[in-house]
Amino acid sequence: MKNNRTPEMVSPIEDFLQEVHQKCAADTAGSVATYIPELAKADPDWFGICLVTANGSVYEIGDTRQEFTIQSISKPFVYGLALEDNGRDATLDRVGVEPTGDAFNSISLDPGTGRPRNPMINAGAIATAGLIAGKTPASRFKRILETFSLYAGRELTLDEKVYQSESETGHRNRAIGHMLRNFDKLTGDPAPTTEIYFKQCSISVNCRDLGMMAATLANRGVNPLTGKQALRGEYVESVLSVMGTCGMYDYAGEWLYHVGIPAKSGVAGGVLAVLPGQIGIGVFSPKLDAHGNSVRGIRVCKELSRHLDLHLFNRPVVGKSTIRAKFTGAEFNSSHVRTAEEGVALRELAKVIHVFQLQGHLAFATTESVLREVLEAAEKIHFLILDLKRVLSLNESAGHLLHSLVSKLHAADKTVIFTHCDHLPLLRRMMKKKLAGHFEEQFTTYFNNDLALEWCEESLLENTQYAHSLTYKAKPAEYELLKDLSAAELKIVQPLLKPRSYKRGQFIINAGDAAREMFFLARGHVSVLLPGEERHRLATFSPGMSFGEMAFLDGAPRSANIVADSEVECDLLTMEDFQALGETHPTIKIKILANLSLNLTGKLRKANREMSVFE
Amino acid sequence: MKNNRTPEMVSPIEDFLQEVHQKCAADTAGSVATYIPELAKADPDWFGICLVTANGSVYEIGDTRQEFTIQSISKPFVYGLALEDNGRDATLDRVGVEPTGDAFNSISLDPGTGRPRNPMINAGAIATAGLIAGKTPASRFKRILETFSLYAGRELTLDEKVYQSESETGHRNRAIGHMLRNFDKLTGDPAPTTEIYFKQCSISVNCRDLGMMAATLANRGVNPLTGKQALRGEYVESVLSVMGTCGMYDYAGEWLYHVGIPAKSGVAGGVLAVLPGQIGIGVFSPKLDAHGNSVRGIRVCKELSRHLDLHLFNRPVVGKSTIRAKFTGAEFNSSHVRTAEEGVALRELAKVIHVFQLQGHLAFATTESVLREVLEAAEKIHFLILDLKRVLSLNESAGHLLHSLVSKLHAADKTVIFTHCDHLPLLRRMMKKKLAGHFEEQFTTYFNNDLALEWCEESLLENTQYAHSLTYKAKPAEYELLKDLSAAELKIVQPLLKPRSYKRGQFIINAGDAAREMFFLARGHVSVLLPGEERHRLATFSPGMSFGEMAFLDGAPRSANIVADSEVECDLLTMEDFQALGETHPTIKIKILANLSLNLTGKLRKANREMSVFE
Repeated sequence: MKNNRTPEMVSPIEDFLQEVHQKCAADTAGSVATYIPELAKADPDWFGICLVTANGSVYEIGDTRQEFTIQSISKPFVYGLALEDNGRDATLDRVGVEPTGDAFNSISLDPGTGRPRNPMINAGAIATAGLIAGKTPASRFKRILETFSLYAGRELTLDEKVYQSESETGHRNRAIGHMLRNFDKLTGDPAPTTEIYFKQCSISVNCRDLGMMAATLANRGVNPLTGKQALRGEYVESVLSVMGTCGMYDYAGEWLYHVGIPAKSGVAGGVLAVLPGQIGIGVFSPKLDAHGNSVRGIRVCKELSRHLDLHLFNRPVVGKSTIRAKFTGAEFNSSHVRTAEEGVALRELAKVIHVFQLQGHLAFATTESVLREVLEAAEKIHFLILDLKRVLSLNESAGHLLHSLVSKLHAADKTVIFTHCDHLPLLRRMMKKKLAGHFEEQFTTYFNNDLALEWCEESLLENTQYAHSLTYKAKPAEYELLKDLSAAELKIVQPLLKPRSYKRGQFIINAGDAAREMFFLARGHVSVLLPGEERHRLATFSPGMSFGEMAFLDGAPRSANIVADSEVECDLLTMEDFQALGETHPTIKIKILANLSLNLTGKLRKANREMSVFE
Repeated sequence: MKNNRTPEMVSPIEDFLQEVHQKCAADTAGSVATYIPELAKADPDWFGICLVTANGSVYEIGDTRQEFTIQSISKPFVYGLALEDNGRDATLDRVGVEPTGDAFNSISLDPGTGRPRNPMINAGAIATAGLIAGKTPASRFKRILETFSLYAGRELTLDEKVYQSESETGHRNRAIGHMLRNFDKLTGDPAPTTEIYFKQCSISVNCRDLGMMAATLANRGVNPLTGKQALRGEYVESVLSVMGTCGMYDYAGEWLYHVGIPAKSGVAGGVLAVLPGQIGIGVFSPKLDAHGNSVRGIRVCKELSRHLDLHLFNRPVVGKSTIRAKFTGAEFNSSHVRTAEEGVALRELAKVIHVFQLQGHLAFATTESVLREVLEAAEKIHFLILDLKRVLSLNESAGHLLHSLVSKLHAADKTVIFTHCDHLPLLRRMMKKKLAGHFEEQFTTYFNNDLALEWCEESLLENTQYAHSLTYKAKPAEYELLKDLSAAELKIVQPLLKPRSYKRGQFIINAGDAAREMFFLARGHVSVLLPGEERHRLATFSPGMSFGEMAFLDGAPRSANIVADSEVECDLLTMEDFQALGETHPTIKIKILANLSLNLTGKLRKANREMSVFE
């Protein structure tokens, strides 16, 4: 996190990591690896912890910028690249995925096939290095280095000294290379592949890099800070699986039991752990235990798992909060303002419009909870609006279920409408493929709920007495604000009304203008739009209604644009005429103001009612 | 799901399971276990699938009500009971948790200590059975049977025939019992424990039971239909861990890699699989492969994992949707209605009130995302309202982080207020323990956001010119609706105002009554409450404001109760007097109605503005 905070505003998570660091620093057990001279040079006191969330928050304590070589922690990442280059089947032909009780440098080839048991032991890692595509050994290693850099979010380099040292002493690994060649698990000369293996182990990283690399795996292969994909999402589960069962050498069962986070360690003292979807952890401390794992690295992972409750198998129930809100069209209307009569009619008719606002990640278990509620209410539903505005992701499984839902409801003569779904292109793609010739007819989408609700409401009103054609023209006696005026009173008002016509799309009122008149809408529809937010209308009015009266009352400049949605005819009443009317015929003005108050009261009651849907 | 649905309204999930059933039924490989005569009697064609979500939705296809014996699937459940009876350490002393490449009936004791490698092999399971508490062998088995019944949600029974058959042929297991006794991994006579083991394997279940038992593990040990706890939540991760690494015998690595769901199989043909927090799966089909796993059981799990994307390591990122909404007190006010001047003041002052509505499960990663946003905005925050209404659970890790946040903000002279937190008793408990003597002072809670917002607003207004004491009495000239009336006009209105006094708690207006007057509030506060929802006030008014004018205008009966929050003085204007005023002094009535329209316009604008916070 940023370091320019006042002390008290340091994150509690940093405080906690500081405590863990202090506690584990007291543990001085173990010894630095000495099998090559370069590693023996490490300061045994170096100790860093870096925790990175899958959302990209970075917390680091201690020697997190000290460079060291990645060593065996390279294995899962090269395995991921091998999967991308060869697919799962071809990779499994060369390297298995079964844990072995043996130590990290054991040869562990299957006696029959010569296939290494898993990619985390040296034999498996060398066979994996042989699977990396590229024309020359140099280009193959370059791809590995570039991929690691994508994970870390910065350009990593090779530690030449460590590489030379590894290469000079790596006879056991060369023997493994030849043995693999013997079983055709490597093709051609094994020597260049063994060298690539030495190089991948000698890539220089720091503790923060480990945290970022872990967080990239936690974030489905995408570095959460750079946004760049380091590994295709579909292979993340495979990489984590081999880490989960084989990552900590002959300690895998205990590790999963006590820590419960897939992890990988390296002899230079690094430990990397990944809690999928949540966090990545990098720890660096060079002293190793008998298994070859960093002593403090293991302790830190145990502390974090226990105190932060990170065990993989300790998961809360999903699905209970997939439905953010649900309501019917009777509880919440479109912003197409209705007459009192239409409003009463819709309060009954629109009960068949059901809106479900969904949120979070749509996968099997989360989508199941939606399907269940929809199907339980299916009898009452005629229009189903699924609002995906707050859905963060949708996978194929969810896509299949939603497609089935659309088909089923369509077959029962019901309509499903998706809103706010442009950020989920997979939905449209799957629907197009699965609905095929019925796509246009069955996959209905609207930009937002307001437009979807309006469409449903119009369908419901269509066959009622409230259906008005666009050519319908209201007479002044039908104007809401002139309600209860006697014929004599109407005769007095009518000469004050100045008829105006507007073409479709024409601006009737411009935001910012002075308010000098109010409008009675005789024919057509008009919409209230905020400047710059043209896709979110505030209201749409129909014949008989008034607009422009709010600014007219309080004298403030016009707060929004009002645009003709169709050919429009209005009657206009100026402020001066209204003023004069109060002096010559106060009773009329009183009636108009009382109607206006009533109208506002109705709108306010409706707004308060609708608000309670969300609160 | 319910079976009384019309065919088209069958859940797509049932359709999908039907497809999987049909596809896998075609696989007739494998053979029924024959090592005891009772098992050999199974019909090789029996085939059932049951999927139960952690929320309790049940989907079943095929022979899901056919009874069979649970066999080795008993092992993880007895292991869970052993953990509850002995704790983790004592249990680990007797049985390890490392996978072994050996088959299910191997003896696999650690050469040094004689400890069985894990509880899923027979030796480990017998050692585990020895850990079950009880005075007599009968009472120990009774506890096992009762526990299994809690998982299944119905009373299970022992299949006596299978038990006799197991007991008669179980010499290998008796040998294991004596070997364990030799190493002191069993105490006393091993024979009764071996019998308990035979009995636990002979408990009769059906496929639906397996699905429910799996869902109970997926739901942190609580049966999702009965709501009863079968296993303490803290041990669920341990049971799933041994299933994950040792559950499928010498097939664990491949299983985790390809299926990625902790599972356990039994020789009678059952397979049980658990995706924590999401679903439980039960499959039953008696034909076994060479590993001793149900052929179709394995295929079904593979199909479900692949098509429903259930792999344990394939998890979406959490935390992105923990904050449901956030807004400041300037964007959304309490329902304490303010004067125009107070409103303007609060629109500036109340920017320091920040409301975060949280949702879902508060654990480390989800709470971290909240902390980060709060701390990033900390400079601007003076009051932080954390609304926990939609928080489903809160664990200790989240409790620690929230405690640190409260302390830190308090030290910086800022206030944290929790609302809607009664359903999370752990929060109060942890705060009480950790804040100790500062608990009362620092742990501030309110029933809802409205009361919390009001308290913050009052604190902000306290030292401004808008602070009114409760004894402040507004004069008629200050009444909002009488604004702009000349002194002469006021003189005409004043005789129509009838003063009334009310005691604190007294009802001024009763819902349902006819509306015959409107009220001008001179002194004190009144609140609008819906009958039966007394804790959710709709509004609170202060001196100078009016109430009761809405029903007064439209003639509808009173829609809510209005109650005096303090000693209250009002001026009352009857409908008749207002009517008469229109005739005698229409200009005054016009002014009052214009003020009312303006007032309503302001409220409507505010309601629309506030609505946009939630939409």
